[in-house]
Amino acid sequence: MLENNTRDINFRQSGESMYKLAERLFPICRSITGNGVRETLSILQETVPLDVTEIPSGTHVLDWEIPNEWNIRDAWIKTPGGEKIANFRKSNLHVLNYSMPVNQEVDLATLKEHLYSIPEHPEWIPYRTSYYNQQWGFCMPHNQLEKLEEGNYQVKIDSEIKPGALTYGEFIIPGETEEEVLFSCHICHPSLCNDNLSGIVIATELAKFLKNLDLRYSYRFLFIPGTIGSIAWLSKNEEKASRIKHGLVLTLLGDASPFHYKKTRSENTEIDEIMAYLLKDEDEAKLLDFSPYGYDERQFCSPGFNLPVGRISRKPFGEFPEYHTSADNLDFISAEKLGESLQLLVRAVSVIEGNRKWINRKPKGEPQLGKRGLYQAIGGATNQEDFRMALLWVLNFSDGEHSLLDIAKKSKIDFSILKFATDKLVSSGLLTSK
Amino acid sequence: MLENNTRDINFRQSGESMYKLAERLFPICRSITGNGVRETLSILQETVPLDVTEIPSGTHVLDWEIPNEWNIRDAWIKTPGGEKIANFRKSNLHVLNYSMPVNQEVDLATLKEHLYSIPEHPEWIPYRTSYYNQQWGFCMPHNQLEKLEEGNYQVKIDSEIKPGALTYGEFIIPGETEEEVLFSCHICHPSLCNDNLSGIVIATELAKFLKNLDLRYSYRFLFIPGTIGSIAWLSKNEEKASRIKHGLVLTLLGDASPFHYKKTRSENTEIDEIMAYLLKDEDEAKLLDFSPYGYDERQFCSPGFNLPVGRISRKPFGEFPEYHTSADNLDFISAEKLGESLQLLVRAVSVIEGNRKWINRKPKGEPQLGKRGLYQAIGGATNQEDFRMALLWVLNFSDGEHSLLDIAKKSKIDFSILKFATDKLVSSGLLTSK
Amino acid sequence: MLENNTRDINFRQSGESMYKLAERLFPICRSITGNGVRETLSILQETVPLDVTEIPSGTHVLDWEIPNEWNIRDAWIKTPGGEKIANFRKSNLHVLNYSMPVNQEVDLATLKEHLYSIPEHPEWIPYRTSYYNQQWGFCMPHNQLEKLEEGNYQVKIDSEIKPGALTYGEFIIPGETEEEVLFSCHICHPSLCNDNLSGIVIATELAKFLKNLDLRYSYRFLFIPGTIGSIAWLSKNEEKASRIKHGLVLTLLGDASPFHYKKTRSENTEIDEIMAYLLKDEDEAKLLDFSPYGYDERQFCSPGFNLPVGRISRKPFGEFPEYHTSADNLDFISAEKLGESLQLLVRAVSVIEGNRKWINRKPKGEPQLGKRGLYQAIGGATNQEDFRMALLWVLNFSDGEHSLLDIAKKSKIDFSILKFATDKLVSSGLLTSK
Repeated sequence: MLENNTRDINFRQSGESMYKLAERLFPICRSITGNGVRETLSILQETVPLDVTEIPSGTHVLDWEIPNEWNIRDAWIKTPGGEKIANFRKSNLHVLNYSMPVNQEVDLATLKEHLYSIPEHPEWIPYRTSYYNQQWGFCMPHNQLEKLEEGNYQVKIDSEIKPGALTYGEFIIPGETEEEVLFSCHICHPSLCNDNLSGIVIATELAKFLKNLDLRYSYRFLFIPGTIGSIAWLSKNEEKASRIKHGLVLTLLGDASPFHYKKTRSENTEIDEIMAYLLKDEDEAKLLDFSPYGYDERQFCSPGFNLPVGRISRKPFGEFPEYHTSADNLDFISAEKLGESLQLLVRAVSVIEGNRKWINRKPKGEPQLGKRGLYQAIGGATNQEDFRMALLWVLNFSDGEHSLLDIAKKSKIDFSILKFATDKLVSSGLLTSK
Repeated sequence: MLENNTRDINFRQSGESMYKLAERLFPICRSITGNGVRETLSILQETVPLDVTEIPSGTHVLDWEIPNEWNIRDAWIKTPGGEKIANFRKSNLHVLNYSMPVNQEVDLATLKEHLYSIPEHPEWIPYRTSYYNQQWGFCMPHNQLEKLEEGNYQVKIDSEIKPGALTYGEFIIPGETEEEVLFSCHICHPSLCNDNLSGIVIATELAKFLKNLDLRYSYRFLFIPGTIGSIAWLSKNEEKASRIKHGLVLTLLGDASPFHYKKTRSENTEIDEIMAYLLKDEDEAKLLDFSPYGYDERQFCSPGFNLPVGRISRKPFGEFPEYHTSADNLDFISAEKLGESLQLLVRAVSVIEGNRKWINRKPKGEPQLGKRGLYQAIGGATNQEDFRMALLWVLNFSDGEHSLLDIAKKSKIDFSILKFATDKLVSSGLLTSK
Repeated sequence: MLENNTRDINFRQSGESMYKLAERLFPICRSITGNGVRETLSILQETVPLDVTEIPSGTHVLDWEIPNEWNIRDAWIKTPGGEKIANFRKSNLHVLNYSMPVNQEVDLATLKEHLYSIPEHPEWIPYRTSYYNQQWGFCMPHNQLEKLEEGNYQVKIDSEIKPGALTYGEFIIPGETEEEVLFSCHICHPSLCNDNLSGIVIATELAKFLKNLDLRYSYRFLFIPGTIGSIAWLSKNEEKASRIKHGLVLTLLGDASPFHYKKTRSENTEIDEIMAYLLKDEDEAKLLDFSPYGYDERQFCSPGFNLPVGRISRKPFGEFPEYHTSADNLDFISAEKLGESLQLLVRAVSVIEGNRKWINRKPKGEPQLGKRGLYQAIGGATNQEDFRMALLWVLNFSDGEHSLLDIAKKSKIDFSILKFATDKLVSSGLLTSK
């Protein structure tokens, strides 16, 4: 059923609607708390009916505490000549994320202690945050910073940091079993596209695609602020976390790089095998070893949880200059690449759903396929020779020890053909589930 | 004892007698049942006293049923010009094997529906069978088929398909233990040499060589029709099958290609290790991964039996154009290559027999070899330095965990020298069997 | 503590004192028994207070017996022309080690049956022994042997072989636990430097360095005659041997070759991992598989003991022409290379001591490092970025399964930085020992 739907989906068209959603989300000023997150989730709810959870500031979550909530209305610097620069309304990156409010006159030397820029890329605005040390600050192109003249500057940040809540979204698609597949993305970045509007729109589109299918696993989608969000979710959902059998952190999926899959902490879980299988023929795709650094896989893969959660990206984390700058904008991602990334995830779900261990009910000698019409069972779409070999491979290795993916790797026959052969063998009574 | 006999055997001379036997068996029309098989087995009985078993048509064997027996006396096509072509008496390949009887006049278009040829090799007659769908047919060179003129053709196949039996031969050499080594070959092919008169004559010669030796294992030789024969044997001998500790399917052993060993289903059994060891220095020899396709290893390695049975061949299965054509004739095999193949099998038996785990009875520190005369124990034939090192290696690793083959692989000392050292250490009381 | 001391040690200066000790030990005529060994041990006692053990001739040790003791005062050959050659007082290599006494006149032909030389290196005196077959003999440069003229030669060896004792030295540094690290070297070679004055002086210097430190393991240093010495020690100390958790045989450590580490019998013990880790960045260093041949690792690694004892050398055993000749002299080794070898051993001890498995006490999610001041904990000497990553790696993999060395290999962060991070995490209460 999933296979048929998989063939029907038009990934080019999905790519375009994902890109449009990214355009709409782009201007919102998100952070790890605050109204930007709420507004974002409310837009996503137009597509999938996700649940929104609010956790009050001060709540203890694992070794951490939910911080005060940050909101901002406006921010700018007025030069000695009266010009407004670093204007929050033009780009929310201009403000140090989680900046405390300020409204005062400072001289240039003092101002510079609060300015951030990137000398190597003098046209770009950096993205900087200070969640846990109360500071104020502005980010601007290095060229602009260099040209600032002596004199008094008016600085204004109309923000507030006070008790409120941390907000996240969650969407569950119940399946045949309570065993879960997790897709997680972070929603705490302001006007940045690859990191991580790409993850948000792909998770949303994937959820929309899966929500009406009959699925074996239950699927959980998390739209959470990075680090503190996953820590908060894990803290409140230890029992649910233990049901997660496969998971992927989705990030950096809209650019034009080859795929980079980062393995789970154990490096040999089923999702690791599945992603390695799917990427083996992708040009220049790379498998990365686990490291306790990066996105929320750090938390899901902490030793006390040790969940089988990998991370799928295009650009490798932290290894591209546009990372955390204004250059990670709507030009840096494309509908086409978002569509291809979605396609990879749909294929992953297809293998996750289909990968089982079966039992051959006639394991002694080969069963006579001819008398069961199995040599003729095949449709025009499938390669006949591969299908016959698929029957033999599935029968021989369906001993309760080998999964269909194991058989795909041994036989070098495509997983989908093996799945088709498996379905025919189940219908004919030769295979039974383990 | 085996080692000495191994050195004595003259493989060139054995090659010649195997080739002569192949010449004598070549003209017989064999199939999966019938008198051709009986005649073949009766000729083999002149060399080894094998037992012949007949299983009646209709007997249920695992998921299959013994088919009716097929016999044929004559077959031909008479052209509109009165010429007899596709004459069974000139080559039994001309008739579709298991063809139903026919005697009628047909026009060219109808005739062509029953003709088989190989356009890529227009001079060769293909070998085709139709065991389980009743049909009639002829095989001929494509050149000849192309030249057939319009008109009426008389077709005659003087065959019969009726209740009878499936026939196979079996020969046991009892050893010290009931644990068995299996050699199996198929006897269902008509005038084809590499596939599989080569296997038949080598199995016969090997049985003749081993039958008067004192052996540790019991040796079972099967001369059976492909697929249905092994299924029938397994069906009637489940208990015996469980005693098989090592096995080889013998086929395609007379041509000039390098050796191809196909691993057992587990791919890490002792016979896999032994064949890998013996072939590692053979020029261009290849190890093939298991697949559930090929010869009777398909049945022996079905998951309900999962026997440690590999397959040894020269030409890789199905990958040479002469396969299943009239070009697989007496020119395609040679006495020399049959002899070399036999030599490999004799070496394999020598390692199978000698490969044990021993226990060093003085495992603490090195035993003093000098006072036991072991540094002088060596004959002129053996390399003295290798022998001394062999003593140390066997003593150090005879801990009940490492087999002599393990030690051969670790030490890079030839198995036969390690075996010689082992015998000396056993005589001196320093080693005991596990 | 060890780390600080490690940084303080001046390996160049240590190299020079080791070289001086080698110069002093060089002239002494050592063998597997006798006064040369006693004199050697007594010189070493000036540096470390080692215990000397004497085992009487005739004592049964494992499969062997302590031989009679050999001592020698003088030896020479007088030519027909009255010249004294092969003079023991000029080089103790001139006498076949363990030569029986002789004092007689022989003709040239008879003399030559007792002479040893190396035709390939005609200027060098070979080193030869005959411990268990009573013989007499002389060693000399091949050039000299070739020039001997016909006539009668007076041969004199003023030695005695009679009941006495085998002598060895032993030094223990008690640590926190009774688990032991063994360093063993042989003391039975006369005027030869790399084999094995290098081992003797390095063992002595290492013992001197370690003896005043607080150590986790106990350290045992053995100064023993080769083969019979280790057999004797093992025979008398089975219970102590079982406490050895890591060990190294020290030999051939003064020349200019790259390091060669020979693995323990199991080839995957902790000392194997540690030496592989330390040598991975050493130019041209090689890891050698275990073989039951070589130095006293033969005995420590006999299957009845199977101790985790590897061997560290520079020149690979037996693969250099100077081996067991007068060319293995004081010019063949250098203070610099002795110093470098000592440095490698000190680093090995540092990893042995520091390599533990820890338990993260906050394993669910990442603990918040900022609030514990751990992001600021670092001194100027250590790389800050590496230190932060080290904290994350140690926390994530301190699950009781991964040792610090495992983490070093996974993270590619230097062991010493991980150790430093571990100490900080222990202090902050986030880590506890397993």
